[in-house]
Amino acid sequence: MPTISAKGQSMPESPIRKLVPYAEAAEKAGKKVLYLNIGQPDIATPQVALDAIKNMDRKVIEYSHSAGFASYRNGLADYYKSVGIDVEASEILVTTGGSEALIFGFLSCFNPGDEVIIPEPFYANYNGFTNIAGVKITPVTAKIEKGFALPDIEDFEKLITDKTKGIVICNPGNPTGYLYSKEELEELAKIVQKHDLYLFADEVYREFCYDGAKPYSVMNLKGIEQNTILIDSVSKRYSMCGARVGALISRNKELISTALKFAQARLSPPTLAQIASEAALKTPQSYFDEVIEEYVDRRDILVDGLNEIEGVFCPKPKGAFYCVAKFPVDSTEKFCQWLLEEFDYNGKTVMMAPASGFYATKGLGKDEARIAYVLEKSALKDAVECLREALKVYPGRVEVPSTAAERSI
Amino acid sequence: MPTISAKGQSMPESPIRKLVPYAEAAEKAGKKVLYLNIGQPDIATPQVALDAIKNMDRKVIEYSHSAGFASYRNGLADYYKSVGIDVEASEILVTTGGSEALIFGFLSCFNPGDEVIIPEPFYANYNGFTNIAGVKITPVTAKIEKGFALPDIEDFEKLITDKTKGIVICNPGNPTGYLYSKEELEELAKIVQKHDLYLFADEVYREFCYDGAKPYSVMNLKGIEQNTILIDSVSKRYSMCGARVGALISRNKELISTALKFAQARLSPPTLAQIASEAALKTPQSYFDEVIEEYVDRRDILVDGLNEIEGVFCPKPKGAFYCVAKFPVDSTEKFCQWLLEEFDYNGKTVMMAPASGFYATKGLGKDEARIAYVLEKSALKDAVECLREALKVYPGRVEVPSTAAERSI
Repeated sequence: MPTISAKGQSMPESPIRKLVPYAEAAEKAGKKVLYLNIGQPDIATPQVALDAIKNMDRKVIEYSHSAGFASYRNGLADYYKSVGIDVEASEILVTTGGSEALIFGFLSCFNPGDEVIIPEPFYANYNGFTNIAGVKITPVTAKIEKGFALPDIEDFEKLITDKTKGIVICNPGNPTGYLYSKEELEELAKIVQKHDLYLFADEVYREFCYDGAKPYSVMNLKGIEQNTILIDSVSKRYSMCGARVGALISRNKELISTALKFAQARLSPPTLAQIASEAALKTPQSYFDEVIEEYVDRRDILVDGLNEIEGVFCPKPKGAFYCVAKFPVDSTEKFCQWLLEEFDYNGKTVMMAPASGFYATKGLGKDEARIAYVLEKSALKDAVECLREALKVYPGRVEVPSTAAERSI
Repeated sequence: MPTISAKGQSMPESPIRKLVPYAEAAEKAGKKVLYLNIGQPDIATPQVALDAIKNMDRKVIEYSHSAGFASYRNGLADYYKSVGIDVEASEILVTTGGSEALIFGFLSCFNPGDEVIIPEPFYANYNGFTNIAGVKITPVTAKIEKGFALPDIEDFEKLITDKTKGIVICNPGNPTGYLYSKEELEELAKIVQKHDLYLFADEVYREFCYDGAKPYSVMNLKGIEQNTILIDSVSKRYSMCGARVGALISRNKELISTALKFAQARLSPPTLAQIASEAALKTPQSYFDEVIEEYVDRRDILVDGLNEIEGVFCPKPKGAFYCVAKFPVDSTEKFCQWLLEEFDYNGKTVMMAPASGFYATKGLGKDEARIAYVLEKSALKDAVECLREALKVYPGRVEVPSTAAERSI
């Protein structure tokens, strides 16, 4: 039998994969599992997008241009202008989800053996995309005690070697929900410029900013226009994760024309989903207003509820729909498994994603978990209650000193 | 400005890319361009697939399972059984087009620097997919004089080094239309088994076999069950190229679980297109009967017409909807450009794909072109007439001895 490739062997598995059989067993045992482990929102896709598909009058589902429909790229340019990002259609490449944008971007910018710095905890699939390109991730740790703010620029500086070719950020962040300020990003720009690095910014949660906070795009940072790559997706914005439509955006023409060669090899992004995505550009502001209001309520129920539990600490995020919480337990891997396998409260239990899978540094995040607040409010109330009761009886509970510093964030 | 990666630089451009501006200029000049250069059929997508999209009652376009909808994978297993390929749903991974299936397959099986043998001329995008995986293509030349039959096994044997890890075939073939016989494939199986290679077979044109010929799948070759990977796609079968739904199929469980890790990183194949693809499994046989009849007529008009032109030679393909023809010209790159730039017949001209882009060996195919017969019959008649007239006046015309051997195929 022929052997599997080295890359195939080192390709990481999903951090929650190990828990899936326990969740299935819990369901089988009649428990209601509250799934807080994945970023699949329950919010309805805008009607205008669904209608475009239903009313489609094409007789042949043809390839689109490899860079996406021209009309959609023009529409996207208008959308970006409307959110303060001044880009032309020619600077936009439509991709099969944000995932493909990252893969094409990494393949275009990095050689095998190159290093990219990523603040951890980070979206676990970055491990897979860098593995495809043969790139090594150098993590710089963001601290839960600081609410996962951007690590000090000196911390980045220390990690730069002659192999360092880029920095990757997610803003607002998955898994932390942290929203970088303009000042933090300007600090980052200095180091990008100084070492002539690529700066990838995954801004797919742009619309999900709370408490009046405004997102600041890396596309507006001065002096690094040729270094900056914006990664985007319709998945979260319009609650159409299954569409698989994203975008790679850069003012670096050589980069766009290189990424286009990868795009030509795979022929075209999905046509049906582009029809839906183009129509979604007409989503009324009221849709977003309602969605944001809903997420703020959900966040408050979840995060405030968690922080009221003795020994739990959860920074309150200003963006996205995730948070990372610290639990007074021996290990969240064990705790999450125990919740599914051994526990229920009024027939319900909770599935969370242990945070260790979001850290590249071994040993970090082992008492943390990522929680997505993508369920309705009543389910989130139940989840908080469930966790409160669980922590009263979990055998691996440990006592954690609750510091004033932690509580003050 | 940071540098583009080596892979990005070596990523090949589409072989017809250079001609596109000339086609656009021809259109602008008021000529009708008959596009025979691409494999985008004009055949209608089955109504049952379009209806499934129009009647969709989902409120949220959610991710599917990373391996595809369970119901679709089960339906696909039934479809494969119906065409004589006995596979289970667990042996099928739904991908974003056949392109992604090839990328995941190559990344899972091959290390950078490994070699794969591919009969040339071959589908030009294999260059891109092997480039992504860092794999080197070793071409083995199929001869137009032999109708592009499988090269002798001794020719393969000579090319095998300690770096050779696989063989890739396309059957029926793009660009040649050649359909490998069971006997040819059994010869291939011997060398695959002897050297324990992976055998990738791109069988996306399975339904397009003519003159009573039946396709034989590599999945039915004995003794190499763990070596064989079937690449499939709905693009051509149901004329829905823009759906971007394909499949990677293998009985090698380790390979499927490895490819699944790549699939998990990109989350899910497109949901809307999977709905259409699953419905397309119910396409009535009458649809295929009509399509095949249409393609046979088109092929006969085109290939018989070409062979009637003095100095032109085109083997008659038994599958797919392409042929490669030899022209009495100095260079088909020049001829194809001249057709667009300098020529028209009754206001019409033809766009073809110069065949040199389908050969890996430099210098081969320079008097050949790939022609896709994806236009209606009257347009193909016009195209043949146009080529006949063009060859009377093309300044780069050369005299080619028309050998009996060539004419006898």
